Amino acid sequence: MSNLLQESAFREAIERVSPHIHNTPVLTSRLLNEVSKAELFFKCDNFQKGGSYKIRGATNAVLQLSDAEKERGVVTHSSGNFAAALTLAAINLGVKAYIVMPENAPSVKRAAVKDYGAEIITCPSTLKDREEYTEKVIADTGAVLVHPSNDCPVILGQATMTAEFLTEIPGLDSIVCPIGGGGVGAGACIAAYHLSPACKIIGAEPENASDAFQSMAAGEIIPSINPNTIADGLRSQLGDQNFPILHQLLDQIILVSEEGIIQAMRLVWERMKIIIEPSSAVTLAAILREPKLFEGKKVGLIVTGGNVSLDDLPFQ
Amino acid sequence: MSNLLQESAFREAIERVSPHIHNTPVLTSRLLNEVSKAELFFKCDNFQKGGSYKIRGATNAVLQLSDAEKERGVVTHSSGNFAAALTLAAINLGVKAYIVMPENAPSVKRAAVKDYGAEIITCPSTLKDREEYTEKVIADTGAVLVHPSNDCPVILGQATMTAEFLTEIPGLDSIVCPIGGGGVGAGACIAAYHLSPACKIIGAEPENASDAFQSMAAGEIIPSINPNTIADGLRSQLGDQNFPILHQLLDQIILVSEEGIIQAMRLVWERMKIIIEPSSAVTLAAILREPKLFEGKKVGLIVTGGNVSLDDLPFQ
Repeated sequence: MSNLLQESAFREAIERVSPHIHNTPVLTSRLLNEVSKAELFFKCDNFQKGGSYKIRGATNAVLQLSDAEKERGVVTHSSGNFAAALTLAAINLGVKAYIVMPENAPSVKRAAVKDYGAEIITCPSTLKDREEYTEKVIADTGAVLVHPSNDCPVILGQATMTAEFLTEIPGLDSIVCPIGGGGVGAGACIAAYHLSPACKIIGAEPENASDAFQSMAAGEIIPSINPNTIADGLRSQLGDQNFPILHQLLDQIILVSEEGIIQAMRLVWERMKIIIEPSSAVTLAAILREPKLFEGKKVGLIVTGGNVSLDDLPFQ
Repeated sequence: MSNLLQESAFREAIERVSPHIHNTPVLTSRLLNEVSKAELFFKCDNFQKGGSYKIRGATNAVLQLSDAEKERGVVTHSSGNFAAALTLAAINLGVKAYIVMPENAPSVKRAAVKDYGAEIITCPSTLKDREEYTEKVIADTGAVLVHPSNDCPVILGQATMTAEFLTEIPGLDSIVCPIGGGGVGAGACIAAYHLSPACKIIGAEPENASDAFQSMAAGEIIPSINPNTIADGLRSQLGDQNFPILHQLLDQIILVSEEGIIQAMRLVWERMKIIIEPSSAVTLAAILREPKLFEGKKVGLIVTGGNVSLDDLPFQ
């Protein structure tokens, strides 16, 4: 059994992280229930500090650093949400944050990270470059690497979102969550494992970044090569910490098209009046693509974030 | 004393309307508190049925029709939100709704009204045309006119929003509300009069549609002539029912620029992750224009609606 499935680690993460984050609201929409013929519940971490759920994992990671490590700072590479989250979590505890950002990261996310007080290092957008630039920061500064998704404290931190969700809405038949680097998905699996084993965790992933879907089928991690999706938060790939959890506990992954993502995002904006980013729209897109799986069921949707560049919207 | 200020009428409207509408959430934003140096509370009727507060007044009006009147149907002229609201309220009670809409009404609002089941009559966008087309519908069908803002049951229905607000957030120093036709402003004044007389009601109005500001100064209704503002819900003018209430009880009106409206709307979208329409952004724009009035205070903002055409956003 993976250490990540120890109940004490899960409970401790909840206790450690909860005082520092929002227990975000769960919203519903009569109209989207009609459209989907299911009873939908949206766990809204777009209202979380920093605009995404990632502050949960970042907080759990920073809170577990030693004093000597805090002295040296933290570093990560991220297209945006985790960068903002780690910066917020670190700065709040007086710890320096170095952020390696790909040059194609959304401008609104880059601006937020800068505002929060990080030192930004810009790199080319390939995974290889991101990793090499990060290694260099570590060599230069001694900063502690916190990976956005393949890191045990981060994964356990992300599990707090689904823990809140299952506590607030009992009896969910399934929870659909976006699959990118695998942190939120593995976190959801861990929370359901302890709190509601009957609740299926279902992944939603862009067709254009389907490495997790392929990895689940292959039983091993298939690299993500030049993923090309509007869901920028889902371009990263699974890691050796979260893949075993997903492989063991995830019910299935539903692939969605770019059109489906944009259409679902528009539905949520227009009908629910909340701003979600494309990476969060994959869940509703998955439900609308496979409606028979969800008809008549009580279904949770993980809304991971709402950080969208208003200058660059896909609606026009 | 205006009949509108009778406490029994106010209490009865709350009892009559509440079972049919959402008691909408009040949201806060740490960042917008920092920007404004005030403690801001947003009463979010963008999450109301139909996407705006107007279902409140429409419901109160339709519930007070006689059976013979219900038989004949209701009619109104509206650029959108009230049209959707009256249609929803009427259709839910099996009453036919005729809606006279100006040809420049936002397409998303026109589509919503049609979806809800109204019969739409398109007219030129001047007030005179709107009124003449409406008279013709009344002559042809016998439908009962429900004015979007200058109608006692409608005004008392709108008062329920501020009543919920003052009940949920005690001790507000002031509430800032958009001033268009005057229904929401008069409703806010009535609710504060009964529930929290120390809470100042402050209006926010576009410079480009400043008829209420001028009317307050003149002590009589000054017509609104070709108002040209992005805040399409605020192009209408005060009426003889709501003006006396506003003149007696409204603390002041702050005028805001078109730029200020768009900037405030962007701030709310980006930082609060909720969709508000330009007519609702005037309140934050007013606070940012006159910051000294609000510094250190506990301030409520009425968010009237979130019906925005995503194909036609002002950000680019």
